[in-house]
Amino acid sequence: MQNKPAYPSRVYLNGKIVDADTARVSVFDRGFLFGDGIYEVMAQVQGRFLYKKAHLDRLKWCLQQIGIPADVDAMEQEIPALLAASGLRGKDCLLYMQVTRGVAPRQHSYPKGIAPTVLMYAWPKSLPDINNAHARVVTATDFRWSRCDLKTTSLLGNVMANEQAVKNECYETLFIRDGLITEASHCNVFFVKGGIVYTHPAGPYILDGITRQIVLELCGKLQVEVRLQGVPAAQIHTMDEAFLTGTSTQVLAIKEVDRRTLFPDVAGPVTRQLQQAFLALKSGSLN
Amino acid sequence: MQNKPAYPSRVYLNGKIVDADTARVSVFDRGFLFGDGIYEVMAQVQGRFLYKKAHLDRLKWCLQQIGIPADVDAMEQEIPALLAASGLRGKDCLLYMQVTRGVAPRQHSYPKGIAPTVLMYAWPKSLPDINNAHARVVTATDFRWSRCDLKTTSLLGNVMANEQAVKNECYETLFIRDGLITEASHCNVFFVKGGIVYTHPAGPYILDGITRQIVLELCGKLQVEVRLQGVPAAQIHTMDEAFLTGTSTQVLAIKEVDRRTLFPDVAGPVTRQLQQAFLALKSGSLN
Repeated sequence: MQNKPAYPSRVYLNGKIVDADTARVSVFDRGFLFGDGIYEVMAQVQGRFLYKKAHLDRLKWCLQQIGIPADVDAMEQEIPALLAASGLRGKDCLLYMQVTRGVAPRQHSYPKGIAPTVLMYAWPKSLPDINNAHARVVTATDFRWSRCDLKTTSLLGNVMANEQAVKNECYETLFIRDGLITEASHCNVFFVKGGIVYTHPAGPYILDGITRQIVLELCGKLQVEVRLQGVPAAQIHTMDEAFLTGTSTQVLAIKEVDRRTLFPDVAGPVTRQLQQAFLALKSGSLN
Repeated sequence: MQNKPAYPSRVYLNGKIVDADTARVSVFDRGFLFGDGIYEVMAQVQGRFLYKKAHLDRLKWCLQQIGIPADVDAMEQEIPALLAASGLRGKDCLLYMQVTRGVAPRQHSYPKGIAPTVLMYAWPKSLPDINNAHARVVTATDFRWSRCDLKTTSLLGNVMANEQAVKNECYETLFIRDGLITEASHCNVFFVKGGIVYTHPAGPYILDGITRQIVLELCGKLQVEVRLQGVPAAQIHTMDEAFLTGTSTQVLAIKEVDRRTLFPDVAGPVTRQLQQAFLALKSGSLN
């Protein structure tokens, strides 16, 4: 289910564009010592970044939440040069952006007067028009913190959960908190029952994904009813459809949950409708 | 309350001892991208590392828990050369050790066949015989994950909580989970009432600190009764004494909680008794 990842050719690091294999940071970078950073991933499709403003606004908001004074507008201005140096100008690709608090002798509290560390890189990636895969997932207790709304690099909880999925030859792990499905290790999750779309409300227990927000908007346009409610884990098997969303995942139908085939169709009617609307939106025929 | 931290002179990084300001890791190190690492801090006092085996055993256990195949015994063998290069052979100092999963193209799950990144450095630090400071603390909801027993570098929750303490001119933030005091942002916490010592039981909600374990052993030797129970936050003001423990904090009496002076004595009788027993243990007169 997962593509083998590769290194990018070039990396933007603190104002310079360098070869990826020479891009290094101090061991005293707080990203390395504390996971003290924020990141974003966005997709360039047909020469434009999808929902760029939403991604950059979220980056700004997360940085502000943890008091890192980075200049995201200045970062945005460096993207064209990075794409050019990477041979990706106008080409389909993904862009990774990370800001850490910077380099300082180790102490937990925020050091004053240091410059944030800024990393960006892009690599070629053509997202399929529609993600026609059919995902297997497992479930696990959500053991992560209560600020999942922050897109931070302190990701070990997500990493451990994703490893659990991969070990089980699955694409994702769905988290269960207080009996409800919240999200997955790097995706949001939706269910459909009786034509109504269900997903966990935004708040401290999920990352409010940009693709999640787009899908909710598309539901409005398509007059599909939405209820912002976490589906009880015990009721997954009573749902009609289930799908994942994410920047590179797009809209991906779920087939199996915990080794049970609950959703045999690729994809159910509402999922398919949303996939097609998302494609129309990407290709600019829907705004 | 907090000393200004400084850089060490020399750093051990992946088999080499280098100047601290040249010690760099790839931006694709999973420590930098995911907080995917484990760390330890231990103190050399009078020429020996206190509870070295306990620290190294915990490092091994944590690494095993998250599937990082590092050779901690080999790391231990490099410590003398690092201390010598740092001018700290036999001198009082602190040693920081960190292992990350290594360098790989970014994907959440554990990559196969990569070498862990190993970082160690030491810096001069003479711990006082007894920590006679008198700490002010604040309390906050414990918003961290449910694997606080892992000493990981995904520390943003602890960092944010510690910053809250510093903003309030306090030494620490005490976490409250389900109404009970669990631990602090980089210390464990104890209370005393009617001659009985209370602290949260080990388990997923606290880091089972080495100094915490030592204090519990000392209570046994001193025939001080211990109850492994989290103290309800609402009952802190009814306690007779309170103290923090940690490798560099040692045993530190608490004075104020949330701007109220609850424990005016530096230190209460049981805290003082434990401080003195800890000093005897450090200096080798108690084993």
